[in-house]
Amino acid sequence: MEINVAQNILNENEHLALENQKLFQAKKVFVINLLGSPGSGKTTLVEKILTYFAGRYRIGVIEGDLFTTKDADRIEKLTKDVVQINTSGGCHLDANMVRKTLQSFDLEKIDLLIIENVGNLVCPAEFYLGEDVKVVLLSTPEGDDKPLKYPLIFKEAATVIISKIDLLTATNFSLENAVNDIKTLNPQVPIFPLCVTKDEGMEKLYTWLEERLQTKKC
Amino acid sequence: MEINVAQNILNENEHLALENQKLFQAKKVFVINLLGSPGSGKTTLVEKILTYFAGRYRIGVIEGDLFTTKDADRIEKLTKDVVQINTSGGCHLDANMVRKTLQSFDLEKIDLLIIENVGNLVCPAEFYLGEDVKVVLLSTPEGDDKPLKYPLIFKEAATVIISKIDLLTATNFSLENAVNDIKTLNPQVPIFPLCVTKDEGMEKLYTWLEERLQTKKC
Repeated sequence: MEINVAQNILNENEHLALENQKLFQAKKVFVINLLGSPGSGKTTLVEKILTYFAGRYRIGVIEGDLFTTKDADRIEKLTKDVVQINTSGGCHLDANMVRKTLQSFDLEKIDLLIIENVGNLVCPAEFYLGEDVKVVLLSTPEGDDKPLKYPLIFKEAATVIISKIDLLTATNFSLENAVNDIKTLNPQVPIFPLCVTKDEGMEKLYTWLEERLQTKKC
Repeated sequence: MEINVAQNILNENEHLALENQKLFQAKKVFVINLLGSPGSGKTTLVEKILTYFAGRYRIGVIEGDLFTTKDADRIEKLTKDVVQINTSGGCHLDANMVRKTLQSFDLEKIDLLIIENVGNLVCPAEFYLGEDVKVVLLSTPEGDDKPLKYPLIFKEAATVIISKIDLLTATNFSLENAVNDIKTLNPQVPIFPLCVTKDEGMEKLYTWLEERLQTKKC
């Protein structure tokens, strides 16, 4: 009984997500579902991407949080193409929440849509939103044991970013262990260790992203 | 329809949690539901508490994770009174999971039971397990904006620990902002800024805990 209800909710979500996906495909918008723990650096990464690609690509942002417009307020300084979703306590975004925001964007003109999900390594991984790729952040202070403890989100990732590498020496995070565990779960996934605030290691991520933006446009 | 199902799950959980609570009360076990993001320092704190109170109080530990026995393996070096719960992908512990582990403990002899919940600032706050108190960790690398973004867990806390204060200068975390926001949500809550790994600021937490253990024994 409970399982059926859960399955129905997931099936209904999948249906709406595929509708979102079709729309993104038709409008040639490349869509990232950005995932990670609270404080892993998602919003700061979005700010950097907006700054780096400014003038070359038009980027829309959907900010997901339980409450507050803190993240959208930050992003609004860099683009007007931003919408805050408040889940009112919900632990993840779903396809319907995303669908309802899409009328706020001129999708014909948007090249990249970044959906910053609720800070949570568990539930957001279970709900497809219609995105092209999931990008997962793991910050060094969280510890290198997290990939095997939260495997689904790392299995689903098209890219894993190991953020806050400036704190490597201040923590007991082993980059080698983390990379090995992520590769065990997801052998082909590109992994980018970087420090967003200090612009360290960002080039490879930008190149990875630009290749996908170019492909989508064709 | 969906809401009713969710309410039934929560009601059933509440019922089982109250049974757990009665049992803990009868056995005079003080029970902590330990909450925080992935990597906020929960397991390391449990290790320190076990070491500090060794020989004076008998402490049981329930470790909650989606997968792996990594945390229980760490705790087992300090006590045999430890059980790992794997939720197999579930985002929180519930009262039934806890209830099923209780036969593994000699509750007559246990003074303190620490239940380390799944690393998640959202879902675990919604499920009462029968505990006396919720203790919430917020680590400085997560950012000082988290209390207002995840208010429920901070409202429910009997104590908030701001962990990893050794990283204060390496992050843009404002202790003042965090404390103000937590006090807005939960005016009376004691807040302990500390660094678990370096034993900084631990005394006040130990005193707070010992007072409760003494009261429970009477």
